[in-house]
Amino acid sequence: MAEKKLGTQTVKFKNPPSIIAGGTIVGPKEGEGPLRDYFDMILVDDTYGEKSWEKAESKMFQDAVNLVLKKANLKISDIDYLLGGDLLNQIISANFAARQLNVPHFGLYGACSTMTEGLTLGAMLIDGGYADYIIAATSSHFSTAERQFRYPLEQGIQRPFTSQWTVTGAGATILASTGKGPYITHATTGKVVDLGMKDANNMGAAMAPAAADTIITHFKDTGFTIEDYDLIMTGDMGRVGRDILLELLYKEGYDIESKYKDCGIEIFDESQDVHSGGSGAACSAVVLNGWLLSQIQNGVYKKVLFMATGALLSPTSSQQGESIPGIAHAITISTTL
Amino acid sequence: MAEKKLGTQTVKFKNPPSIIAGGTIVGPKEGEGPLRDYFDMILVDDTYGEKSWEKAESKMFQDAVNLVLKKANLKISDIDYLLGGDLLNQIISANFAARQLNVPHFGLYGACSTMTEGLTLGAMLIDGGYADYIIAATSSHFSTAERQFRYPLEQGIQRPFTSQWTVTGAGATILASTGKGPYITHATTGKVVDLGMKDANNMGAAMAPAAADTIITHFKDTGFTIEDYDLIMTGDMGRVGRDILLELLYKEGYDIESKYKDCGIEIFDESQDVHSGGSGAACSAVVLNGWLLSQIQNGVYKKVLFMATGALLSPTSSQQGESIPGIAHAITISTTL
Repeated sequence: MAEKKLGTQTVKFKNPPSIIAGGTIVGPKEGEGPLRDYFDMILVDDTYGEKSWEKAESKMFQDAVNLVLKKANLKISDIDYLLGGDLLNQIISANFAARQLNVPHFGLYGACSTMTEGLTLGAMLIDGGYADYIIAATSSHFSTAERQFRYPLEQGIQRPFTSQWTVTGAGATILASTGKGPYITHATTGKVVDLGMKDANNMGAAMAPAAADTIITHFKDTGFTIEDYDLIMTGDMGRVGRDILLELLYKEGYDIESKYKDCGIEIFDESQDVHSGGSGAACSAVVLNGWLLSQIQNGVYKKVLFMATGALLSPTSSQQGESIPGIAHAITISTTL
Repeated sequence: MAEKKLGTQTVKFKNPPSIIAGGTIVGPKEGEGPLRDYFDMILVDDTYGEKSWEKAESKMFQDAVNLVLKKANLKISDIDYLLGGDLLNQIISANFAARQLNVPHFGLYGACSTMTEGLTLGAMLIDGGYADYIIAATSSHFSTAERQFRYPLEQGIQRPFTSQWTVTGAGATILASTGKGPYITHATTGKVVDLGMKDANNMGAAMAPAAADTIITHFKDTGFTIEDYDLIMTGDMGRVGRDILLELLYKEGYDIESKYKDCGIEIFDESQDVHSGGSGAACSAVVLNGWLLSQIQNGVYKKVLFMATGALLSPTSSQQGESIPGIAHAITISTTL
């Protein structure tokens, strides 16, 4: 029986897995941003020595995994499962990295929600008794995402102020069955929510309803209040999405503003001309595995609700008149049990 | 600790979940094939009343879920998680179906291995104590797959004899924490394997090395022998892939031929001009949830090794000179515990 389930969409882990290491690689622009001191590796050139941006992205994915293994002093053969995905069609960054890594692989597609989708499933696999170590990883690249989802870069199209800048980077987390924390204690899995947004240059607005839905469900399922958390952090709402999310929550009686941050807002400085903020699967991945883990380890935050947010944007469905659904998966990261 | 793990890539479930229902929808061509009596619904028109094949595929996905719910006498609110994916970019069939279904959703991308990827994770979620009911589902459509992965259909390009015919259909399985079987007792999760095949019209050859790897690993991890199984069934090797798989296994000392079937070979008759056989994520899904479950329920097979096989083909990576990696996930389905 589902003895670990709380409410409708949340689970409470019996033996909460420990986050034992996080690894990050970012591109040059992210390396000039305010969180630059927290990344493990900053690329000088976003082709990473490869002949295409897609190959560069897959190499970042692979090297983020190798990097986190090194930080945890583990070998790939110690890892029971890799749970990985990315934004590219057929998740080629993850799949081609997995080809080199030689590890049992579950391929995921959750768009920019992939980091917490992987951590949720990974935590379930460990707490369920199937794994001692898992790696959850994801990547994105400004140049691969722009040309797949929007316009050829050569076209030099003007970006509206609601648009976000896809983070170039890759992040990987190792969860372990034993460790001294921080722990993943709860996970609230999102539903696909769509209020009809059709603008591929306004991802924040497309994701806000799903983000609000998962946060409210999390509070209802767990009985936690805003006061129980030191920080509530979303993946890539950006400034536009942030305002909509805060308003949606406020209308439902949740005023989270004093506890709230968004990875997409934190990763770039306003002077970096990214408009609404950062986005992409790597946005939440590198902020979590870089800045946030560091803050938690240094005692700045003791209990965090972390939620990667995905806009399930597809050029094919958009061309066929469909709107852009969103999804958001939240996890509770706590230094104590 | 990973007390349910066997060997390097396999788990043995402690309380094996029951397959309580399977639902299938197929297109007209599949409905003329030798397994036609085992499908729940056969479309007269492969647009399914929609304005595009992509919308038709998503509708099939959604209706396969609704259909299996009805067969199990359950409501969507009884389902803890949907684990779904498909072949289309951004898994739009699964995501747009999930939007209508209002259920916590884990999006997967395992190409044609999605059915057993979803069943493996779903079984882990149930046996791990996170869910009482899960649905694993997938879909594919000849016309959406051809135009995404190969050529515009209007081009009328000649198909080589190694090519396979993507199955139009959708299949969904409900797993439950309690039930009288058939049970999923073991799961062997595959690695991404690539021996260098580059031909998008020879998926069988691309997948055979991954399929062989997972089958051999399964036998080594579990200690089972070929004699322990009544049937060993792959997802969509087709005739070309079948021969390569049997040869690869034979060289390693495993002669499975007398126990072996492939969904891609069974679903179409040779007179249907599909060349090497059927393929697509729905190929294994509709054969499992249609013909195979019926055979198991009727006592024809008591213990089956079922393995969906995925070719991680991507037009982008192929155009950049990459070969086609494969992956295969196997589950043991048994009528007894």
